[in-house]
Amino acid sequence: MEQQRLEQQLAFLLELDKLKNVYRQTMVLHEDRQENDAEHSFHLALMAAVLAEHAKEPVNVQHVMQMVLIHDAVEVDAGDTYAYDAAGNADKRERELKAADRIFALLPEDQAAEYRSLWDEFEARETAEAKFANALDRIQPMLLNYKKGGISWIRHGITEEQARNRNCAIVSDGSDTIGALCEEIIEAAKREGMLQ
Amino acid sequence: MEQQRLEQQLAFLLELDKLKNVYRQTMVLHEDRQENDAEHSFHLALMAAVLAEHAKEPVNVQHVMQMVLIHDAVEVDAGDTYAYDAAGNADKRERELKAADRIFALLPEDQAAEYRSLWDEFEARETAEAKFANALDRIQPMLLNYKKGGISWIRHGITEEQARNRNCAIVSDGSDTIGALCEEIIEAAKREGMLQ
Repeated sequence: MEQQRLEQQLAFLLELDKLKNVYRQTMVLHEDRQENDAEHSFHLALMAAVLAEHAKEPVNVQHVMQMVLIHDAVEVDAGDTYAYDAAGNADKRERELKAADRIFALLPEDQAAEYRSLWDEFEARETAEAKFANALDRIQPMLLNYKKGGISWIRHGITEEQARNRNCAIVSDGSDTIGALCEEIIEAAKREGMLQ
Repeated sequence: MEQQRLEQQLAFLLELDKLKNVYRQTMVLHEDRQENDAEHSFHLALMAAVLAEHAKEPVNVQHVMQMVLIHDAVEVDAGDTYAYDAAGNADKRERELKAADRIFALLPEDQAAEYRSLWDEFEARETAEAKFANALDRIQPMLLNYKKGGISWIRHGITEEQARNRNCAIVSDGSDTIGALCEEIIEAAKREGMLQ
């Protein structure tokens, strides 16, 4: 029994090795290449622990960490959809639900339900933990992109309004302090010609 | 005050972006390239949550997750030292202590102490959490390497004894089930000509 559980858990863990090959629009800071989902999720989990005091409501930090570690798991099948890609975002939900059905089912039944529920919770953005996790998910690429000279905003011709509408309300919903940071980044990026 | 804390926390979090550029000997499963520390730490944090039931003693899962997320932070300065590199391992401790002094001090004072203590705890391998975290740190590259045809063992001419001595006692110290898996991997790798 324990052996069979371990095998199912390893199947899930090794499947998620594929997140190391799902590339995002954000660039890493010190190499000329795009960040992948595993690196992004690593960064979010660390941010969840280090920045927890800034959450708008008290959060269960472990819960947030687990949520951000699997929030992109569906992209193993569904791929990364760029935040400002309207066509890609049209069928994103459908593709991701199908992926969630397959990927979380690799786990033993109790954990399959637990991790699927974590993913649904992240997507719904209703609990304190999900709001904080989503705030981190929005601010992390903004931080990297700003530090990298706004490269992916410039490449895609993103406007100040697009960046603000897509990100700052959701960030502020999870944290006042980090919400203020979101506004500051957009102001600075505008001033420095990174956002139209 | 809150603003200053946030700035210090961001300095630490952005410094650790460099872990995305510290490459290990282990290969990722689905591309022809080495894994980096951020990807490795992502994988360990996820394993900590999914495999916690296999820990030899009950563990505080959040504590294990935080520990594995920062266990390689010192490699930003000290680089990755291959497990079987005797010369590199001779002055590893000294290089890493110096790095720890610098990197954790980027955080606000209370968190600098907290994260430095987590790193020291991981290194000492005495608490239940540190033993389990170290078990994951040893089994993860073995799993990937075995699934990848033993590529890094073959490249470096590693023997069955080296692999067993370096890994399985430490893995077993953190988990009986995962300790048994360590032995199974070594037996299979020997049988399949991946280990000498």
